[in-house]
Amino acid sequence: MPSASMSEDEKVFKDPVHGYIYVHDPVIWALINTKEVQRLRRIRQLGTASVTYPGGDHTRFSHSLGVYEVIRQILLAFERNNYAWPHHLDRLAMVSGLLHDVGHAAYSHALEPVIGMRHERWSERIILDPTTEVHQVLNEVYPGFAQHVADVIGKRYPNPLVVSLVSGQLDADRLDYLMRDSIFTGVDYGKFDLARIIRVMLPKEDKIVVRKSGLHTVEAYLLARYFMYWQVYFHPVNRSAEVILRMILERAKLIHESLFMPHPALRRLLREQSEMSLEDYLAIDDNVLTNAFNVWSSATDVVLSDLCRRWMGRHLFKYLEYPTSNLKAVFDIGQDVASLGFDPQYYCVVDETGTVYYDYYVGGEGTSGKEGALFLWDDEKAQLIEMSRLSKPISAIARERQMVRRLYLPEEVLSHPIIGPRIVQRMAPSDVR
Amino acid sequence: MPSASMSEDEKVFKDPVHGYIYVHDPVIWALINTKEVQRLRRIRQLGTASVTYPGGDHTRFSHSLGVYEVIRQILLAFERNNYAWPHHLDRLAMVSGLLHDVGHAAYSHALEPVIGMRHERWSERIILDPTTEVHQVLNEVYPGFAQHVADVIGKRYPNPLVVSLVSGQLDADRLDYLMRDSIFTGVDYGKFDLARIIRVMLPKEDKIVVRKSGLHTVEAYLLARYFMYWQVYFHPVNRSAEVILRMILERAKLIHESLFMPHPALRRLLREQSEMSLEDYLAIDDNVLTNAFNVWSSATDVVLSDLCRRWMGRHLFKYLEYPTSNLKAVFDIGQDVASLGFDPQYYCVVDETGTVYYDYYVGGEGTSGKEGALFLWDDEKAQLIEMSRLSKPISAIARERQMVRRLYLPEEVLSHPIIGPRIVQRMAPSDVR
Amino acid sequence: MPSASMSEDEKVFKDPVHGYIYVHDPVIWALINTKEVQRLRRIRQLGTASVTYPGGDHTRFSHSLGVYEVIRQILLAFERNNYAWPHHLDRLAMVSGLLHDVGHAAYSHALEPVIGMRHERWSERIILDPTTEVHQVLNEVYPGFAQHVADVIGKRYPNPLVVSLVSGQLDADRLDYLMRDSIFTGVDYGKFDLARIIRVMLPKEDKIVVRKSGLHTVEAYLLARYFMYWQVYFHPVNRSAEVILRMILERAKLIHESLFMPHPALRRLLREQSEMSLEDYLAIDDNVLTNAFNVWSSATDVVLSDLCRRWMGRHLFKYLEYPTSNLKAVFDIGQDVASLGFDPQYYCVVDETGTVYYDYYVGGEGTSGKEGALFLWDDEKAQLIEMSRLSKPISAIARERQMVRRLYLPEEVLSHPIIGPRIVQRMAPSDVR
Amino acid sequence: MPSASMSEDEKVFKDPVHGYIYVHDPVIWALINTKEVQRLRRIRQLGTASVTYPGGDHTRFSHSLGVYEVIRQILLAFERNNYAWPHHLDRLAMVSGLLHDVGHAAYSHALEPVIGMRHERWSERIILDPTTEVHQVLNEVYPGFAQHVADVIGKRYPNPLVVSLVSGQLDADRLDYLMRDSIFTGVDYGKFDLARIIRVMLPKEDKIVVRKSGLHTVEAYLLARYFMYWQVYFHPVNRSAEVILRMILERAKLIHESLFMPHPALRRLLREQSEMSLEDYLAIDDNVLTNAFNVWSSATDVVLSDLCRRWMGRHLFKYLEYPTSNLKAVFDIGQDVASLGFDPQYYCVVDETGTVYYDYYVGGEGTSGKEGALFLWDDEKAQLIEMSRLSKPISAIARERQMVRRLYLPEEVLSHPIIGPRIVQRMAPSDVR
Repeated sequence: MPSASMSEDEKVFKDPVHGYIYVHDPVIWALINTKEVQRLRRIRQLGTASVTYPGGDHTRFSHSLGVYEVIRQILLAFERNNYAWPHHLDRLAMVSGLLHDVGHAAYSHALEPVIGMRHERWSERIILDPTTEVHQVLNEVYPGFAQHVADVIGKRYPNPLVVSLVSGQLDADRLDYLMRDSIFTGVDYGKFDLARIIRVMLPKEDKIVVRKSGLHTVEAYLLARYFMYWQVYFHPVNRSAEVILRMILERAKLIHESLFMPHPALRRLLREQSEMSLEDYLAIDDNVLTNAFNVWSSATDVVLSDLCRRWMGRHLFKYLEYPTSNLKAVFDIGQDVASLGFDPQYYCVVDETGTVYYDYYVGGEGTSGKEGALFLWDDEKAQLIEMSRLSKPISAIARERQMVRRLYLPEEVLSHPIIGPRIVQRMAPSDVR
Repeated sequence: MPSASMSEDEKVFKDPVHGYIYVHDPVIWALINTKEVQRLRRIRQLGTASVTYPGGDHTRFSHSLGVYEVIRQILLAFERNNYAWPHHLDRLAMVSGLLHDVGHAAYSHALEPVIGMRHERWSERIILDPTTEVHQVLNEVYPGFAQHVADVIGKRYPNPLVVSLVSGQLDADRLDYLMRDSIFTGVDYGKFDLARIIRVMLPKEDKIVVRKSGLHTVEAYLLARYFMYWQVYFHPVNRSAEVILRMILERAKLIHESLFMPHPALRRLLREQSEMSLEDYLAIDDNVLTNAFNVWSSATDVVLSDLCRRWMGRHLFKYLEYPTSNLKAVFDIGQDVASLGFDPQYYCVVDETGTVYYDYYVGGEGTSGKEGALFLWDDEKAQLIEMSRLSKPISAIARERQMVRRLYLPEEVLSHPIIGPRIVQRMAPSDVR
Repeated sequence: MPSASMSEDEKVFKDPVHGYIYVHDPVIWALINTKEVQRLRRIRQLGTASVTYPGGDHTRFSHSLGVYEVIRQILLAFERNNYAWPHHLDRLAMVSGLLHDVGHAAYSHALEPVIGMRHERWSERIILDPTTEVHQVLNEVYPGFAQHVADVIGKRYPNPLVVSLVSGQLDADRLDYLMRDSIFTGVDYGKFDLARIIRVMLPKEDKIVVRKSGLHTVEAYLLARYFMYWQVYFHPVNRSAEVILRMILERAKLIHESLFMPHPALRRLLREQSEMSLEDYLAIDDNVLTNAFNVWSSATDVVLSDLCRRWMGRHLFKYLEYPTSNLKAVFDIGQDVASLGFDPQYYCVVDETGTVYYDYYVGGEGTSGKEGALFLWDDEKAQLIEMSRLSKPISAIARERQMVRRLYLPEEVLSHPIIGPRIVQRMAPSDVR
Repeated sequence: MPSASMSEDEKVFKDPVHGYIYVHDPVIWALINTKEVQRLRRIRQLGTASVTYPGGDHTRFSHSLGVYEVIRQILLAFERNNYAWPHHLDRLAMVSGLLHDVGHAAYSHALEPVIGMRHERWSERIILDPTTEVHQVLNEVYPGFAQHVADVIGKRYPNPLVVSLVSGQLDADRLDYLMRDSIFTGVDYGKFDLARIIRVMLPKEDKIVVRKSGLHTVEAYLLARYFMYWQVYFHPVNRSAEVILRMILERAKLIHESLFMPHPALRRLLREQSEMSLEDYLAIDDNVLTNAFNVWSSATDVVLSDLCRRWMGRHLFKYLEYPTSNLKAVFDIGQDVASLGFDPQYYCVVDETGTVYYDYYVGGEGTSGKEGALFLWDDEKAQLIEMSRLSKPISAIARERQMVRRLYLPEEVLSHPIIGPRIVQRMAPSDVR
């Protein structure tokens, strides 16, 4: 069972999602043991979500292993069924799956706007930089392998089948994280029949499609996404924790010169992030940020220390939902907030987020289309059919952008006898929760 | 589902172990939202165990909620069956369960020898200190309630039934952590039939016993402990991570004056831990330590930075098992280690640990006995029978202390062409793993 | 654990769906032990479905216990939350749930058209007939209790809340069978968050509604129904087994006078079912029919023995799907079938079935409406909103009747080199599976 | 998903135990569709156990598929690890696993004493008889294949490795039924880590052993057996149902000439079972017996009709446990029973059963030994060690025969005001349950 046993040829990890994760390829094993991949142990998969789901503390590391395992299982199924698949690229696919998130920033998506660079770019940089352990392992496979892996993750690799395994409408990334987030949070909605999805997947020309007999299985998978967004990813309290985290970082950026920095890389992150070195970037993980918030709870800056104490003690902001953008009302509420002594820049925060559960655009059905579309293969008619044409529930949630708009405010403001009701009224029709 | 919803009377937490955790008592709710309980979100239940079980990142916070929930369910079962139970103490029992681990140190048991004070003592201190949020909530129940809670946790409370719910051979603490550790690591061995255990528990005079019909259910629970020790708690790679963590702390203690401290409380912890303030103690969580190890990876002290880099990159020590203590051999191996330039104080570490799966001492059966014993209630004969007298497998693992003795060394030492084999021989008969 | 233990006050059944089913009321216990309820052990919940799902052999008995348990849990939740609920009717509700299927015929729905009387009517008859053990137990509660139970099952009981717990859009019957069928077949699609559904249910005036915060939980439940229909209830091979079963019974009815009857009640069933005695009806269970098919495998009637052998050896009919009714084609195919020596009345069988996943008709929203509608309670606006107005996926599958139309034929016919392709062409555009 | 789909190359069955059961070999597929294997759908795996565990209605058919699947997975693991295994015998192993129970009698073990021939013998007969569909499929593989399969099942096949996969201390049969019985009854005790057991299995010379690192996994498996015996297989109420079933058959045998036989094969079974034809044997399944009990509930023979009514309505016998054989007391109690008008031959039934959880006899350790022993392979010392030498709990339950001795009597007898207490006293020290 343990990852460190040396006497067994086959390495395994016990995993609540897949039972066991099997490693036979020494390249995979060497990559897992690089410091860059080990760093993912210190980055939570769901960022702040354990604020509402106490079980949701799983990491990018376990997710990365899971993506690798899903790809491994898909490739086994393709082999078993003698599908037309370029099996000489199997290692490339599995390595790309394992490394697709290697550049993820601390607290996942919350840090990205502060850094101004997406994690996929950092992943590529880690893979290509000759100083990283990851690169050194890749380079020993063959010169140019690292570049190929970076190209798959960057969606530039010439073989679209390999790319779609890692990033596509039905990729190993989503297949793992929906199941994993569902199991660790305890939210059952994200579960679907992974074994059967793998069984109905089929490489067809330049993309991975699904046999028509798997229609309902894939429906269930897309609906699982829909449910997980509502129950977890858009959860108002999770978002509240993320809002505070963002405000802390923005405040710290502003006053960084006078601030104690518990980690040297943190200063460079907050001052000159565009020229941040790879070493600095890799040094920063969830612990570095959380420790900083801990230390800054006693900072002299009133705003920063207050925000940090709220974060540490989980005294989060409350929120008002509003159906459509209303800048005037937000501006007025900002003034109400200020009248109580709170700087509206940090204490009156608009949070707008959204997603499209399933997108598609099909130039000419049956041929190729935009990557967003998910196709079913009708064996008898020998043609591809876009998913939403066969499924009413999917058609109902397809293409449209689902928006969530909330205004976050301190509880003290909303419960103020005069200001509170006034704010609610400004935003009406709205709900205080 | 979310903990923050205000409009519903009944609060719940989704939990992979118990399905839902229900909170009806506003005192429980207020305690959960204190900063001292929220701090437990930042302390992993299993310390270093996610080194081998990537899913095992669950926290003391989710465990504390779980202990509360198990007590709640036990009390409901007692009520449903009209057992002779002091129900006016229900709140005391549930609060004590929730708070029993509130004083846990970062990385659980690894830090305790460095601080030289057990976490139960800190729990009591947090409960009794008038400056803590926890104390303030407790004090509003009635003056003296905080003291009662401290007494239950300290096993001094006059009613032994309440004490045994929180700390006993079949307490809510173990019932939760065995299930929780089992589910999050993915190791199935720790599962048992919790619902049925609750159903066969019975308050009898001064202790909680089990109906005789529950014999096999309780056997399965005790065997689950046995398995979890071998698969998780004694796992050699987990222990290796803990060994390195301990060495880091010892080294940092020695050289603390010249060391950058990323958190002010850390300096006081390493310098004068006996006079540590409660505030300092509470400031230190897993993130503070992990961030320190991260920063110290670049420290000028060669030993410290090397140990920290090993910890961060999971380049742990290997080990030799040895059946009986052999001080002479360890001393000689220390010299071998030194000959390769490693300070044996940090690079040749003896790790001896052990447990007794089930202990008992019974002065006179049928009456009262030592708290360690687990009794079955035979309804027909109207007498109590000590567990191991009815069960062969339990009798086989009872009372004896199971010892694990390992010597941890760097891989470089063990794989050295001359020194390696010599060390193995010194320790023979032994196994290199 | 066992149902027969006499020494414990609380009786339980171990159950893969609910963990444990708890019985505290001696009336429930006495009813479970009547011969009419015990008969449900011999009637499979899913009729022929274990033909495709080998695990699906669970019985109406375990389902009946499950319905009782779900009602028990709902009532506990109502009590815990102090909802306005007529708790003096709790026993009536639980008993009605336990007995709602007591009149189910062998092989569930397959037998009903042959008997020409729906199982709900037989349930009422069993409850009201003074000779049944069930009636005798009910009568001891109070005179008139049996009538009340029959009225709840027959939807005539004056309190609509009690009725809706047993038969409604979100009743305990569906809540149990979707979960149960899902778990025993191994088809994951039917699972949903039962504990949370129970938590968001709310009695409101004359019906049970759902808090608005439970929207997505109820969506998942309605979609589970949708998936179970496609994966299990409409499964073409299950339907094929049911088609053969129906043909056997029709043939046996026609020639019953010359047929050996392995159970005396069977002759009366096939001859004069309208005057069938209750005793005869209760005598017939799955075993009686299956044994008859076994015996009739050697009958001299060629059609009957052939159909029975097909049934026993699972040599079922194949099918053609057709999108719209096409009587002319079916007639022509019947002649093709006859040309190969098969009587089309038994060997060319149209199977049309359908359902509406979620139906509603609302006279005036916010007030009362047709029972089919499922309402959400918006606490802030203090109004009821019909489900499909808030959910796109549910709106997409609501109200429309989903039809499945298949023509079942022997494999020998479809694989005939000349007749086979001709039949496929007649039915084109269609699929042979 | 369904077994009948023709367009997919890989056939699967959904299964609550293994997720999916995969069939690639057309011989396996053809065997599954023979009428002899389909007959196993009508024989419950646990005989009467659903009397206490309402979920336990799973069949020998699903178990047989499961045994096949476990063997398939073991062979895949052997192949992956390049173990020395005769892979040209893989089909023989999988077919033998699928067919090992094909001769099982109705109600499993209850019928065997009445017939006087063990089911393994019938399995061989079915495999070898040229008139069966099973034989015809086997014969097409190659002449002599049927004989090889029969030899594996009969433990005469020259290659002991193949035999031990089907019948041994750690065979696929036990691995499946413990898991299956555990899952369907809902009794968690029978679960163990099947995936890991498969991973640590190792063919070593003439037997299948387990790597030493798998010690605790195999401990858990052996303890699962121990628990399942107590919770399910020895369950006193299950045994009570089996006692009644046996009494019914014995009575029916005695009076068979004057009895209506609802199935012609039944008369031959009860009259002249030793000369029973294979056709007759195969005709009898659970339904035939249950239907007969149903019909005989109205028989004129008072004993038979009473026993049948008890069986149908689950009015089973109660029992007294007694620690050691006491023929005198049983004889006296028989007279008490007779004094109340019950024939003691049918109403005062001794039920003695027992098992050895783990047996071994080892001539010379490290070499070969009796098949009962389970060996661990110590890679470093390159030697085999018998299991119980390394495990205290297993050593505690090994070799000794666990006996259960119960006397079954009608409830009316035990609750008789005078006779009841007298019987209890005669049997003292004993327990009435």
